[in-house]
Amino acid sequence: MRIIIHGTGAIGGVVGAALIRAGHEVIGIARGRMLDAIRDSGLTMISPKGTVTVDMPCVAHPSEIDFRPDDMVLLCVKGQDTDAALKDLRAAGMTDQPLFCLQNGVANERAALRYFPNVHGVTVMMPATYLSPGEVITHGAPCYGLFIIGRCTGGADAADAALKAAFDPANMACLQSDAVMQSKYGKLLMNLGNIVDALLPLDADRARFTARLKSEAEAVFAAAGVAWEDMGVDNPNRAKFLKVVDIDGVPRSGSSTRQSVARGAGSVETDYLNGEVALLGRLHGVPAPLNAAMAAVAARLMVDGKGAGGMTEADLDAVFLAAT
Amino acid sequence: MRIIIHGTGAIGGVVGAALIRAGHEVIGIARGRMLDAIRDSGLTMISPKGTVTVDMPCVAHPSEIDFRPDDMVLLCVKGQDTDAALKDLRAAGMTDQPLFCLQNGVANERAALRYFPNVHGVTVMMPATYLSPGEVITHGAPCYGLFIIGRCTGGADAADAALKAAFDPANMACLQSDAVMQSKYGKLLMNLGNIVDALLPLDADRARFTARLKSEAEAVFAAAGVAWEDMGVDNPNRAKFLKVVDIDGVPRSGSSTRQSVARGAGSVETDYLNGEVALLGRLHGVPAPLNAAMAAVAARLMVDGKGAGGMTEADLDAVFLAAT
Repeated sequence: MRIIIHGTGAIGGVVGAALIRAGHEVIGIARGRMLDAIRDSGLTMISPKGTVTVDMPCVAHPSEIDFRPDDMVLLCVKGQDTDAALKDLRAAGMTDQPLFCLQNGVANERAALRYFPNVHGVTVMMPATYLSPGEVITHGAPCYGLFIIGRCTGGADAADAALKAAFDPANMACLQSDAVMQSKYGKLLMNLGNIVDALLPLDADRARFTARLKSEAEAVFAAAGVAWEDMGVDNPNRAKFLKVVDIDGVPRSGSSTRQSVARGAGSVETDYLNGEVALLGRLHGVPAPLNAAMAAVAARLMVDGKGAGGMTEADLDAVFLAAT
Repeated sequence: MRIIIHGTGAIGGVVGAALIRAGHEVIGIARGRMLDAIRDSGLTMISPKGTVTVDMPCVAHPSEIDFRPDDMVLLCVKGQDTDAALKDLRAAGMTDQPLFCLQNGVANERAALRYFPNVHGVTVMMPATYLSPGEVITHGAPCYGLFIIGRCTGGADAADAALKAAFDPANMACLQSDAVMQSKYGKLLMNLGNIVDALLPLDADRARFTARLKSEAEAVFAAAGVAWEDMGVDNPNRAKFLKVVDIDGVPRSGSSTRQSVARGAGSVETDYLNGEVALLGRLHGVPAPLNAAMAAVAARLMVDGKGAGGMTEADLDAVFLAAT
């Protein structure tokens, strides 16, 4: 079994490094400065267990890979890059190998089913950060992260068992689920505050905004008949496998959306987080004006090119007021 | 009311020319040689009623448009270009203006609801062809085409009434529906043969392949609980409004997919036609191997760069046999 990791940011980087440390054959698909850095100096992973550097064979594009029947592919790109990644994988010769979506949001699996028959969801609970090209960190302990996996249409199969058998010994706790998308919807609720985190200064009060976004989303889920599993801090598996711990000298740098904005990534996945709630609301006739407003604000942020933390609480209060 | 037409191929071209002839303010969003030709020499529409050339103000990108509250947008791009078009429209300032999807397939409306609240479906029954840059044709009579319209989530509203009031006097028969997506699913069944049309020589027997693709799709729709309206030649509105008639010297040039392949468009919308059936089948646990195979064949066609009509009936028989 060879494991192909498409996207070597925070999640793909930590997962790749951990799997290589555990002895697996891994190929990364990376780009830009991350690709150059990994090729030059390897991939460095910092964790509460210490710092390790691994050699990670990387390519710039799926077309450089000769796909084999026993490959599995871990999709670790952001939601807005999923469709292009899928088309590239198909053009490169991937067919019915298992594809695992280690991505936030719930739209990636449906997007993948348009092209591929063997699609699995993965709920990723891992406080990972892309620090710099060639360097990623996870603040998770005792495990680097917690992963819920299963076929995206329900159930779990031999591919899920194989991924679990690879992840568990690599210090990534992996649980099979017959309803993996329920945990992904639960994780989505937790990600609705990512854009708030990106917009406000680090010392601002985020909780009151995030609570309203989550409450609005829960009403939409109820109307849409979406079942979800609470993935918050009270989740029993989190207590067992995953705590966020301090690492000397390396503060956590906020949500993945804040990380994207801070490094000028040019796009954010808000359309697949708050935008997913707006979409579901429109499909089912339930208003979701606050989440829709957050998607619109994120889109303007990309047009205006403003950095992270550029909005005050009063600014955001005004956005919420105008939306409702 | 100003009507913005995003995509000036066969459908957008005929609709734009007809609306301009009827006195409406239209702005086209065009590209490449089509844009150059329209700016240089206007847009020429050939129909059973004769040939007309109109001046059509065109821009190359939505960002060149100052959107107004009373604009409506007709989306006439192919399915594979929808997401980029939607993001461009939002970045250009479009918000809650009515968006009408004059597109094949059933995925465009859902894609649009992620970004916009006011989304309408349009089932387009129009035998239109992109002849050359600046020149389009419809073989439809007595009307240029027949259009079923309504809100994509059901019902019809003032925007639908406004579009009907514009289309009907422009010789484009427009019917409001409370369940427009049902007619779009019916049209989708008719489009499943587009790829077959593109693959085979013009004199080959297409019917037996197309019938099997349609039969497989009907079983998938039934399992998915998708209701559909028969839009075939027995549809009573077709008999009344739309017949395909000969025009001296200008033969019909086949399905839109064949047109795309023939002019080397670089991508085809098979993923949103046969691929939609494959997706629905995978979501609902019903196999759709023939439609999945057609999507795969179309993708290879793009990679190989082969032209239209490059496959024999025996080749296609072999593909069907291997898939089942």
